[in-house]
Order: sequence, then C-alpha cells, then structure tokens
Amino acid sequence: MFMRIDKLQANLPKPKKADPNAAAALQELLGGKFGEMSTLNNYMFQSFNFRNKSKVKPFYSLVSSITAEELGHVELVANGITMLANGPTPDEDHKGDISSAPFKDMTDIRSAASFLHAGGGALPVDSNGLPWNGTFVFSTGNLVLDLLHNFFLECGARMHKLRVYETLSDPTGREVCGYLLVRGSVHAHSYALALKKLTGVEMEKMLPTPNIDLSKIPESQKYLDEGSHRRLYTWGEETYRDMAAIWGGGEQALPGDPPGDLEVVSGHPDGAKIDELVGASAAFTTDYAPEEIFDIAAKLHAKM
Amino acid sequence: MFMRIDKLQANLPKPKKADPNAAAALQELLGGKFGEMSTLNNYMFQSFNFRNKSKVKPFYSLVSSITAEELGHVELVANGITMLANGPTPDEDHKGDISSAPFKDMTDIRSAASFLHAGGGALPVDSNGLPWNGTFVFSTGNLVLDLLHNFFLECGARMHKLRVYETLSDPTGREVCGYLLVRGSVHAHSYALALKKLTGVEMEKMLPTPNIDLSKIPESQKYLDEGSHRRLYTWGEETYRDMAAIWGGGEQALPGDPPGDLEVVSGHPDGAKIDELVGASAAFTTDYAPEEIFDIAAKLHAKM
Amino acid sequence: MFMRIDKLQANLPKPKKADPNAAAALQELLGGKFGEMSTLNNYMFQSFNFRNKSKVKPFYSLVSSITAEELGHVELVANGITMLANGPTPDEDHKGDISSAPFKDMTDIRSAASFLHAGGGALPVDSNGLPWNGTFVFSTGNLVLDLLHNFFLECGARMHKLRVYETLSDPTGREVCGYLLVRGSVHAHSYALALKKLTGVEMEKMLPTPNIDLSKIPESQKYLDEGSHRRLYTWGEETYRDMAAIWGGGEQALPGDPPGDLEVVSGHPDGAKIDELVGASAAFTTDYAPEEIFDIAAKLHAKM
Amino acid sequence: MFMRIDKLQANLPKPKKADPNAAAALQELLGGKFGEMSTLNNYMFQSFNFRNKSKVKPFYSLVSSITAEELGHVELVANGITMLANGPTPDEDHKGDISSAPFKDMTDIRSAASFLHAGGGALPVDSNGLPWNGTFVFSTGNLVLDLLHNFFLECGARMHKLRVYETLSDPTGREVCGYLLVRGSVHAHSYALALKKLTGVEMEKMLPTPNIDLSKIPESQKYLDEGSHRRLYTWGEETYRDMAAIWGGGEQALPGDPPGDLEVVSGHPDGAKIDELVGASAAFTTDYAPEEIFDIAAKLHAKM
Amino acid sequence: MFMRIDKLQANLPKPKKADPNAAAALQELLGGKFGEMSTLNNYMFQSFNFRNKSKVKPFYSLVSSITAEELGHVELVANGITMLANGPTPDEDHKGDISSAPFKDMTDIRSAASFLHAGGGALPVDSNGLPWNGTFVFSTGNLVLDLLHNFFLECGARMHKLRVYETLSDPTGREVCGYLLVRGSVHAHSYALALKKLTGVEMEKMLPTPNIDLSKIPESQKYLDEGSHRRLYTWGEETYRDMAAIWGGGEQALPGDPPGDLEVVSGHPDGAKIDELVGASAAFTTDYAPEEIFDIAAKLHAKM
Amino acid sequence: MFMRIDKLQANLPKPKKADPNAAAALQELLGGKFGEMSTLNNYMFQSFNFRNKSKVKPFYSLVSSITAEELGHVELVANGITMLANGPTPDEDHKGDISSAPFKDMTDIRSAASFLHAGGGALPVDSNGLPWNGTFVFSTGNLVLDLLHNFFLECGARMHKLRVYETLSDPTGREVCGYLLVRGSVHAHSYALALKKLTGVEMEKMLPTPNIDLSKIPESQKYLDEGSHRRLYTWGEETYRDMAAIWGGGEQALPGDPPGDLEVVSGHPDGAKIDELVGASAAFTTDYAPEEIFDIAAKLHAKM
Repeated sequence: MFMRIDKLQANLPKPKKADPNAAAALQELLGGKFGEMSTLNNYMFQSFNFRNKSKVKPFYSLVSSITAEELGHVELVANGITMLANGPTPDEDHKGDISSAPFKDMTDIRSAASFLHAGGGALPVDSNGLPWNGTFVFSTGNLVLDLLHNFFLECGARMHKLRVYETLSDPTGREVCGYLLVRGSVHAHSYALALKKLTGVEMEKMLPTPNIDLSKIPESQKYLDEGSHRRLYTWGEETYRDMAAIWGGGEQALPGDPPGDLEVVSGHPDGAKIDELVGASAAFTTDYAPEEIFDIAAKLHAKM
Repeated sequence: MFMRIDKLQANLPKPKKADPNAAAALQELLGGKFGEMSTLNNYMFQSFNFRNKSKVKPFYSLVSSITAEELGHVELVANGITMLANGPTPDEDHKGDISSAPFKDMTDIRSAASFLHAGGGALPVDSNGLPWNGTFVFSTGNLVLDLLHNFFLECGARMHKLRVYETLSDPTGREVCGYLLVRGSVHAHSYALALKKLTGVEMEKMLPTPNIDLSKIPESQKYLDEGSHRRLYTWGEETYRDMAAIWGGGEQALPGDPPGDLEVVSGHPDGAKIDELVGASAAFTTDYAPEEIFDIAAKLHAKM
Repeated sequence: MFMRIDKLQANLPKPKKADPNAAAALQELLGGKFGEMSTLNNYMFQSFNFRNKSKVKPFYSLVSSITAEELGHVELVANGITMLANGPTPDEDHKGDISSAPFKDMTDIRSAASFLHAGGGALPVDSNGLPWNGTFVFSTGNLVLDLLHNFFLECGARMHKLRVYETLSDPTGREVCGYLLVRGSVHAHSYALALKKLTGVEMEKMLPTPNIDLSKIPESQKYLDEGSHRRLYTWGEETYRDMAAIWGGGEQALPGDPPGDLEVVSGHPDGAKIDELVGASAAFTTDYAPEEIFDIAAKLHAKM
Repeated sequence: MFMRIDKLQANLPKPKKADPNAAAALQELLGGKFGEMSTLNNYMFQSFNFRNKSKVKPFYSLVSSITAEELGHVELVANGITMLANGPTPDEDHKGDISSAPFKDMTDIRSAASFLHAGGGALPVDSNGLPWNGTFVFSTGNLVLDLLHNFFLECGARMHKLRVYETLSDPTGREVCGYLLVRGSVHAHSYALALKKLTGVEMEKMLPTPNIDLSKIPESQKYLDEGSHRRLYTWGEETYRDMAAIWGGGEQALPGDPPGDLEVVSGHPDGAKIDELVGASAAFTTDYAPEEIFDIAAKLHAKM
Repeated sequence: MFMRIDKLQANLPKPKKADPNAAAALQELLGGKFGEMSTLNNYMFQSFNFRNKSKVKPFYSLVSSITAEELGHVELVANGITMLANGPTPDEDHKGDISSAPFKDMTDIRSAASFLHAGGGALPVDSNGLPWNGTFVFSTGNLVLDLLHNFFLECGARMHKLRVYETLSDPTGREVCGYLLVRGSVHAHSYALALKKLTGVEMEKMLPTPNIDLSKIPESQKYLDEGSHRRLYTWGEETYRDMAAIWGGGEQALPGDPPGDLEVVSGHPDGAKIDELVGASAAFTTDYAPEEIFDIAAKLHAKM
Repeated sequence: MFMRIDKLQANLPKPKKADPNAAAALQELLGGKFGEMSTLNNYMFQSFNFRNKSKVKPFYSLVSSITAEELGHVELVANGITMLANGPTPDEDHKGDISSAPFKDMTDIRSAASFLHAGGGALPVDSNGLPWNGTFVFSTGNLVLDLLHNFFLECGARMHKLRVYETLSDPTGREVCGYLLVRGSVHAHSYALALKKLTGVEMEKMLPTPNIDLSKIPESQKYLDEGSHRRLYTWGEETYRDMAAIWGGGEQALPGDPPGDLEVVSGHPDGAKIDELVGASAAFTTDYAPEEIFDIAAKLHAKM
C-alpha cells in the first residue's frame, strides 16, 4: 500500500514565461524510455515480483523504498512541465473571444497534441509525444540481473537528465533537473553498492557516468550541501531500514561529491508546497465559465 | 510525495495450482486499457495537472486520494498474477537439470513472453501480452469532462473485472476480483456524486453498470459486511478529508448494497501480509545457485 | 452495406494560404484518439456487434445511422486537411527544377512525414503524426456501457474540436470545426437521451460539455439557423426512422441552442461540391509529367 | 457522403458451434495488415486525397466506388467473427450463476482479450490481437504508385484470405472467405487494368496471385455462377459509371474464371439479411438483466 | 554469414552547417516505412525464409545479394544523418559550461528526442521520430507475391527518396539521395525483371515510377556515368552470380538512363572512406572528459 | 559495407516434428527486446554513430566486428524457426485439396499470424507475435554508457536464451540456443573487458549472469571444446584486429569455461550448410503450382 502527502519533493521556482517547447523537452524525463515513469514502474514491478524476499531482505527494501521516491519524481517532473507550459500565473483569467484564434501559436509548438489533449498539462509521453509503454519495464526475478538493469537505467537516465538540462534556460525546468540529478545519482550509487555486495565487483567506481561531477550543476549545489547525495529514505516503512546493510556500514559518498557517510533516514524529505496551477477559461480549464463551479465547490465546502 | 506500507490491501488465499493462463487473464486487470495501471495513471496525472485546486478543493482531494488507493490496486493484482503463475509454494526448490526442458509446458501457455521475460512475474501488459501505454491516460484539465471520463473508466473497468472473474476458478484470482469490484464500485459512485454536485445530474442512478449487484459475488461479501463500499480513505493526508463534501453529507450506499452513510475514513485499511514469492532456481529466480546470495544477504543483515 | 454520394457534408471555403502546421493540427480531429476515425469506428463496430437488435431496435438504429454520418465527417476533415496543406489552387503547375530543393520548407513543418508520405494529403494520424489504432475502439456489447462510452467520446471530441478551432485562423479549418461542433453536439445529445430512456438519468443536463454554447462560434451559426442541431438523418435506410423513439417524442433542443423539436429526417443533408485538389508535379502528384496520364484518361473517357 | 443499407453483402450460414479460435483467425481478415480495414482505409483516404480528379475521372471513380464496397466487406467479416465466436443461437439465455466461472474456457482461447473486451464481438485487431493502425495506409497522391500499391495489397490480401480459409472448417467463416476471394479478385483485376491503361503493362496476366483458380474453392462457385467476378458496382453514385473506361470496353474475365465481359452495374448487390446476434446475460450483453431494457425499448417503440 | 568492410558505399561531402531538421528528414530514408531498414529487413527475412532455393536459385541469389547491399545503404543514410546533425568538424572541442544551456536550440528542432537519445546520431526512427517496426516486413514465402512486394517497395522508396531530396539543400544529404536513387532504381529494375521471367509481364515498362528520369538529379550523374545503374554485385559470394539469369542475358538499361547491358559484377564497389565523427564533450560524446579515455585507448593500442 | 557468405554459423540438426509453438518461443530470441534483432541493431547503429573512432579504435573495432557476427545470429535463429515451424522435410509435396481445411490446426497455435503472414517463416516479432521496434536501440555516443548498455543487453539476452532453451525439447531449437549461449557469453565477456579497460571496474567478475556455467548445457559443449568461447573474429576486416587490445593481452577465459587465452581470429568460423526449406504448395510456398516456376528457373539457369 501507498500513502500520499500533498507536497512536492523540491521547491520549484516560478517560470519566467510560458515555453511549451521547453515543457516538451522536459517530457523526456517523464515519459521517455529513461524518464521517471520508467524508473518508477521498473522498481515498482520488481518489488511486486520479488522472490525470496525474507532471504534477501535488504535488497528488497532498497528496491521497494526507492519505488516510493520515484512516485514523487514523476510528480516533480509533471509539475515542472505544467509550470513551463503555462508560464507565470496570470494577473487575471483572460477569457476573451474564443473565435479569434487565441491559441494560434499552438500550431507551431513541437507537440501540438500536448495542448490539444492536456491544455498544457503533463502526460505520460516523451519529448516527441510518443507514449510511454510497458516494454520499458524489465523484471526477470533474477536479482543480479535486475539490479544490473537498474544500475544501467539510472546511468542512462542521468545522461538524459544532463542533456535536457543543457537545453533549458528557464529556472523551473533547470531546478527539476538539478534535483533529479542528485537523487538519481543516489539511486545509481545504491544499485552499484547492491551489486558489489552480491558480486564483489566495485561498480561504484564507474560513477559518475557520464563522467561529470555534480559540482558543475549550480542547481544541484543546495541539495549536495544538505547531504541529499548521502541519504536514502524509508518513505514511511521502518522495515525498509535494513537497506542500511547496503547503503551504510561505512560506505562513503562518491569522490566528486561532498564527503561523508551514507545513511538511511527514516521518513521522507520535508518537501515543498505544490504550485497551484491556475486554469485558463479559454482553454476550458477548469471550464469555460468556471465561476459556477467555483461557487458550487465553495458552498459544498462551507456545508461540511 | 508518496509513502509506502509493506502490506497488501486485501488478504489473498494461496492458489491451488499454477495456472499461467489464468494469470494471463488477470493481466487484463493490471495492464489492460481498463486495468489498474490505467486507473492509477489517469488519476495520478489528473491530480498533477489539477487547475485552481484551492477553489475546487474537494474535487482535487477526491482524485488525489483515490490515486493513492490505486497504487495498492496495482500491487494487489500484481500479487494475484505472480501467485497464480507460480502456484502453491513448493516443498523444495526443484533444481533439477535445466537441459531436460523443465519448462516445456511454457511453449503452450497463452503468453509465453510472460515466462520468458518475467519468470512468472507480473508485467504492465494486458491479457494478450500487449503493453500498457500512455494513450490510455485522459487529462484535459476540464473538471466535468475529466470526472465524466473517470466515471466511464470505472464502469468499463467493472465490466472487465466481472468478465475476468467469470473466467477464474482458483480462489486467488477470484479474491482479487471480489475485492476490486467493491472498491471500484466505490470509485464509480464517488465520481458519480462529484458529477452530481457539479451538474445536478444524478449519475449514481446509473449504477451499478453493468447492472448486477455485488450480492451476486461471494468473494465480495466480507468487504460489504465490513462496510468497505461506504468508505473512502484519506491515505495519510488529512487535507483530503474535505472530499467528504462529495462523499458524505448524508449520501447513502447504493440501493443494492448494504445500507448506510458514506463516510471518509482517515488513514487506510489495515491490509494484509504480502505473500512471499519463493524463487525457482531452474527459472533463475533469485538465481540458479541462490544459496550464495542468501548467505551474503544473511551476513549483511547480521552486520547491521 | 454502404452507398456513396460524391458530395461533401458541408461547403468548405478555399484556404487563403498553404499552412501545413494548421493542417497538422486538424489531423487531431481525423486520426487522434478523439477524432472522426474514432467516432466512426466505434459506432461502426458497435453496430456490427449489436445484440438483440430486434428487441432494442431504436438504439440499434441510432448507432447504425450515426455511423453513416461519421463516414462523411472523416471525409470532411480529410478535405479540410488537404486544402490547408496545399493552399489555394495555383494558377499553373510550377514544375520547376526538382534539384533546387523546391520543398526545403518542409523540413521545418511539424510533421515532415505528412509531406513525405502523402504530399500534403490527409492520413489516419493525429496532430503529432502518431497513427490511429484499434485500441481506440470500445465495443463491449453492454448497451448502457457502450452508450455511456459514446456520450463520453462525443464530449471529449467536442473539447478537441474547440481547442483545434482556437488554433486556426484560416477559414477552411474553422469551417470544418464549426460544422462538426454542431453535428457532434447532436450526437452527444442523442446518446444522452438514449441513456435517459434506459436509465432515467437526465444526461442531457450535462450538456454542453465543455460548457460553452455554440452561439460563441460564428462558423456554427448558419448550421444552427438551418436547425441542423435538431436533426438526425436516416442516411438512406428508412428502417432507422424508429430512432425517433429516442430523438423525437417531444424532446427539445438544448437550452443554449435555437429552440425547437428534435426530429428524424429521411435521407441526408444536401451536401456541397467536393473541392478538386490540383496536383503538384514537383511533388509527383498526379505524377512528374502528368500530361500523358491526363491524355490517356481523356481518351479512355472519350471511347466510352 | 455515405448512405447505409441494413443488409449484408452475402448470406452467411449459421455456425455449427462456437469456435473462438476460428473467430480469432478470421480477425486477420478484418484488422490485419492485409485485412478489410486496410483495403477500406487505403481506398478511402486515396479517394479523399485524389488529385486532378476531373482529369483522371475514371480512376477516381474506380477507387471511390470500391471504397464503398469495402465498407460492406468490413461488415461481412465482422459478422462472421461474431457468429463464430458466439456459435449457434441458443435456445434460451442461460443466465446461471456468474460465480461458478461460467467462462472458464475463455482463459485458454488464443485471444482472451476478445472475450474480455468485446464479449465475442469483432474488433479492429488481427489474428493475434494486435490493433490495426494507420501506418497500414498508403496514399502518396501519385496515381501509378497508389494503384500499384492497391494491386499489391489485393494480391497480399488474397494470400491471407486463402490461408485463413484453409484453417476454417465451420461453414460461416468459409463462406466469408469464399465471397471475399471473388470480390477481392475483382478488385485486383480492376487495379491491374487501371495500371495497364496508364502504363501499357499487362498486369492482369500476373493474376491470379497466388496462382490458384477460384474453381478450387467450393464456397466461391455460386458467386462465380452469378457473374460476380465480372462486375463492379456504382454503389449508388451514377457518376462513378465512367470507371467502365477501365472495367469494360471489351475487357474479359480472367482465363481461369467463367468467361464474359466485365461490366459496371448500377447500384449494389441485393444483399442478405444480417444475422441477429443474441445476447448472453452472463456476459452482460445486452446486460445482466436485459428484460428491463427490452421492456423500455418495447414501450418506446409502441409510443411512436 | 556476413562479413564487414570498413568503408562506405559512396563518398559523402562534408556538410556546410549543422541542420538537425534536415537530418530528421533524412531519417525517413533510414527508419521510415519505405526507408533502408525496411528494404534491408524485407530482403533479409525473405532470404532466410526462402523455399526450394535450389530449384529457383537465381531468384534466391538476387534477393540474398541485394540484402548485403542494403546493409550498406543503412550505413550510408546513417552516416548522412550524423553528418547533417553534427555539422562540419569543429576546429576544437568547445567544452564550455554545461550550465549555460549550451543546447538551448535543441528544444526547437523537430525531433528533440534525436538529440536527447543519440546526441545527433542516427536511430531506427522515421522523420517524425516514430520507431521502425517489424510490421514493415513482408515475407509470405510465395515467390511471385514476395517479388511483387519488393517491386512495389522499391517504387515507394523511390518516391520517398525523391521527396526527401527535394527538401534538402546541403550537399551531404543530397549526395545520399543521389546515390540511393541510382541503386534503388537498379533494385526496382531487377525485381521487375524477376517478375517478368516468372510471369511474362513486362513490369520494367512501368519504370521509372514516379516517372522522372535520373538525368534530372545532378547528384546521380557520376554514378550513371560509371554504369552503376547497370550493375548488380555478388557482395563476396560467387554462388550468387547466377542471378545473371535475371539481370543479364541481354537485358538492357532503362530507356531514360545511359544505355548498355545489365551485368553482374563480382565483389563490391570500391567504396569510400567513412567520415570520422568528432565527439562533443558538452554532449557527453565520447564523454565529458574524453581525454582520459583517449589516453587509455592509446596505451592499449601501443601495448599490442 | 557488408559482404555475404551463403553459410550458417552453426550446423542445425533436422527437427523431429513440426512444432509451431516451439518456433514461436524461439521467436523471442529473434524479435524480442533481448533477441538478435536487438543485439544486431544496437551494435550496428552504435558503430555508425561512433565518435572519435581513430582515438578509441579498439573499442570501435570491437563493436563493429560484433555487428557482423550478429547478422549471422539473426540468420541462425531465423533458420531454427523455419525448421521448427515446418518440421522434417516431407517425402513429397502434399498438395491435396485446399478446401478441406488442411491447416485447421493453425487456429490453435499460439501465433496464428505467423502461419497467416509467413507460412511458417521467421519474422521480426517476439514470442507473443509483437513486432520488434526501434525503441529497443540504445546509442547515446557516450562510450562508457553504450558499453555498459551492451554488457547489460548481453546478460539480459543470456537469461532469455536460457529460458527459451528450457522450453524446447526438439534438437533444432536447442542447438540454436546452445550455440548462441556460447557466442553471447563471448560478447558479454568482451564488453566487460572493454569497460574494465576504460573504468578499472572488473566487470567480468560478474559473469556469468545468470550464474550458471555453460558446462550445464550439453549443446554448448562442442563449441567450448573448439575454443569458441575464447575467440572473436574480424569478419573479414583486418583493421578490426586491434580489438585484441581488449580481447587478448593475456586475458583469460572465464573460470567456469575451459581455460585458455582470449584471441582475435582473422576471418570467420567455417560455418555450415544452410538447410533447404522445402515449400508447401498448399500453403502457396513457393506457389500453389510451383512446377511451372521451377521449370522457368531451370531454363533460365540453363541458358546462362
């Protein structure tokens, strides 16, 4: 079972302008083969399919707890996309005249379907608008092989995060990347250590791949300063603490990052307020004439 | 953000025998167009894309909290699939000789790929092995339209659950269906009420669709007896309690179900122990010679 | 069986200029999940799969006759796309030199494949170039559920038509939208009434969804003035007249539209001349040197 | 525009038993790459995209009229599928107890999804359950190339029809194949002649491909006896008669078929009654308790 | 079995500038339905599936040897794409600051995923970024039908090559098209002759389709001058020489091309040097800090 | 460029009986995500996209030469599939009566489409009939990351080969697996060594994954005895010999395999005769009445 907290894992700055093509680029990190939908579903299905979990409990705990974190990553990227696609909160809801082609610009953005389907919301598709699909999930039940996959997946995801980051100039999307680069590195590192425990191969010496330190990413620094790169969370399930047998026991931060012991932390990061996405009546979000709906909702609330 | 609890939403009885074709049928409820991956991702993306959430808070809370429950539904179906595909826990791990075609039977099951990819684990694919994909997600940002979609989705999902149920004779899969039919009915009902509040149309009078009462499903009875059909949960986020403006306020259980007030419950159901899936060395799960891995894991655990 | 009439359901004004990106946007209404290929094939397959049609004949007649109309909608959107992609009829066929990159601009349009495959013709793909596929068809055989789907589909299609309309400034595409918004509203209304007859739920009170009246769409007015919003056609099969049991019997136009009785009309609308698409030799349509072909065809015709 | 006639192009004998796997094989001829959805949509889109139609009118008429016929082919195969999947009309509606796994057998059929989605109805998918998709449509606007494609498509479709035929023992599916083999041969022949007129190449000498005469197919004989192999129909649009410039003018039946002049016939074949598909309450078609629906429909009809 | 020669089939001029959209257009000829991945895999699978090859040996030799050539076509287009996407070889590797959005322009190119996945490399996708897939392969085992398919495929591929050519102004991509138009014409011609031998139908009289002579393509002239249009190669397997029974025996070049006998040539064309693609550290190709890797590789080489 | 040799990499024993479901299982190793189409295309595209090849030449040589070998693997699996699907060479061509449902059994095989499309030939699809697609190719241009992918891909492929092997009882398919397990292990080993040279991480210590020695596979023994597990081939391109800097230099066979030095061998393995697939007239392969075709071909050959 899963619980929900109405907070975002990181605080995203407001975008400076609407930039649907930048939002589309960020979609790669959501619905691309190496996006968060992939990391989420790989670990989620592996955790459901886990064999002999009592006998290899720390490994089960690792995959299971990271699954919970990935849900928040999907949420974070989705929020970044909606913010970039919609731009700064408007002073007022420009209803205007829908017959004057108010969204003419949308024919020239890279993924017109994003506007036509979602009105600027996030969808499980990649940067070209191709839908995420279930063939992106790998779950054989062989522990070493599944962990090797996860290690590779995180390195591949790191590459995609870096390249998306390099295309974005707006602070919202860059912050998404800066945060995810830190947390993705933690996951790559943790799978490397898991493989090392099982096979003796020092996979962590291959990190970071690609070989660029996070010190080169300004948006990652505050997370490094906090020590985020040394932490795994239990996400509410104390029984997952035993993943410290992998992530702990004297294992250290990667050489290029601020030094220190790796540690398992109970609970979850504090998180930040989720930005409120204001609707656009002309795009029928919440609706063309939302006042009535707002009024109904207010009355419903008052009656409670 | 999401938290995780290492429990299943319902207690699943052990299967009587391995039945990969029955497991494949159950895959429809996991990765089919009307499976739990679809309900999960529809509500999850809608909750991320929600507009004006402060102005229509009870509706946001409804969609957001149900998202959390759907994660557990995905988990429940996945567990049902792995149990059915693998059958009763074997007395011992029959290693045998991999050169004697020990899995010859797998060429004749309906989805050979399920064995070849996942060794009998669950995957995000449907009953024919087609992968779930992102076109199954609908999220326009228009509140009435998105809720109408959700109402339709739950009715369509109910149809698929009923038909899958009718194909299964083993208690494991039937229990999955029995539980999900109750909870899916709650979700259909809640979206009906949400639409009624917004539009005045008494959608709940169309329920149940298909028009068969849950009293006809023996496996649903204990959940009805507990009152599960009258409850929505906050799944850990108290701010979602205000969905009681929709699910509450004197609204009643559907006529065919045990009577009573609808109510929002803090937290989550107690849940049940997750079945431990025993590996099969011959299928390389956990691995061909897992003893070494078990030994490593035991030592790691001991050192903590 | 189906018959064909060499006319278009509505008269489309000539485009002012070629606008391949606007044509691509219009593709959403042809090959998108909520495009006319979807409405057509849903109703077509439902009509083929209909159960107990003699016992529920008016419902069968409704779905079957609308199928015939949808064929004309596919035709209408396809014509709009080819007109927008090709622009005004050229004064002469500019053959020019194919070695001077005469279609250089095509590398920068949103869907280069549309030019490369179809030379500016319409294809069963969406606004991002993704192909229409059979998972978009829903046909369970459960009457209430299939009708509920159809009602939802038409509301979703209305949203997509509105958003596409808002992106188009050229009269051709806008006329396509203006006409289809009227006819799509009829279909939504008819499925609402069908559901009301079967379940007692006043679904039509949810219309229009999104909640914007057609009076806001200038291109829709002439169709409303004609009373198109109050009419269903038999499309040549008189046995379908009994759908008047649903669309008739005193049922009225929706409140926001011009008032009047709903009525079933024998036959079909008058229709309009189909625009003749002139080929472009440089794009090999009809061919690079079409004169010979024209000559052959003229002689063949003369010999008849 | 298209009109509809509530008849089937050929009379299908009742099936002797329900045979879902045979129905699945027949799906190849509906939603496979060389199925009727492909022939229909190729000619339909080509007719919409046709260039310079006034200058090459007989060719336009040919493609346009065949489009109308293909709609009826889709209908014919769909009916064959539903009949085979459902079997003979039952004496009574066995409601029985849905909790006793009444559809247990459905887990072992080749396409369980066909039952789970469509309750034994036809869907736009192939014999393996893969959805038909828009990449199967070829429409370049180059007349010779599009006709060459159509000639190839019909030859490929003939191969698939022959192979499906060879797998079927029940008369229903065999009759579908027998009829379509005759009509598909007409279409192949007509595209051959169209190419010959344009290029001088005697394509019809390549027919039949595969090189087996229809005289070998017992189910085709009555259609040959009627002269169906020598006829193209106008399908209600007299302006299409000028395709006689291609199909006519002394052109003869293929050598292996009964001899005679090719001719264009106004209108359409007489057609046959469409089989009424009886619902199965246990499969929720029309619904679990359809009597109420039947009663409502009867009263609606009576009031007219 | 296949062997490899580290050369390209044709010499490609250096591009004048990076042009990712032109590279995307060229992708149509690689991963599109009528691209080189399709010609390659169609002939490859047909050659693997060939029936009675000893009895129809020249036809087997034809398909088998062309398969080998198509591998080089895939290579040629891939090289053209990488060259166009990356532009002229830079004077130095601009490492710069990855935090300054060095690839901001990539959000506005047509296929952002091409950069994000491949850093400007070629991928098996089409001009819209849709992946090539196995449904593009046709291999029935019927000799006439498979050859007819191949003839059609080459004509369709010729259309796509011509249209892509017309969109390109840079010499690199144009050279790719100029070369492939010559060789593709050879393949179309050879399948035409194969069909003629088997059926007596003079298919080659339909060539060229589209009906434009290669004399109109400046980039094709040097290959025509060499006589490339009259040659098929054995690609290293002398047993394939017997395809001269089809491509030879007095058969002549097409009328629009330089005249002469068709001939089978042992071996392969001389080929040209493959352009060395220089990495971009900022795009992590070969890596962010590749010097270390270069150093390792140099030392490894030295030790040999 | 690539050359072709008309031989198979290994000698396949004749099948004992036709077993279409076993053939379908073997399709997983051809068109599945971890099948030979994937290994081939991954290495092929990586070799085309290679950066700075002169600076990292041994790595380029490794990937490029293995590409050539993979072509032969695709060929080997394809041959295994056709042999299993068609069974032993029949004594005579049973033409019989196609109207007596001669292929009735094909409705019950797992992938009816395999028969309907390919008449028992191999296709680029997986064990469930899903088409191979281009998203299975990974080629970022980052050397370490691409090699890591390749290492993971080979380990994943090994798992799939092992599981397919365990389902097959017929010698043909088992031999395919036995051979590929040896060669795939070589490739995994070589990528491990490449990574070790670049990063210092001893990846080869993770081999074999899954952790079962080839000594357990009887069909692999003769290849081990020959030393195949210690050899990489240049496949005709001597410039690739420098991959000995990776595969050589004293590196040894894996501990579980027969000991010895790793070595680069010029050329290619001897290979074996390709089985001649006899057609089935009733399935229209080569055709329904192939004698005429055989006669034509014989005469053509005689005239040379």
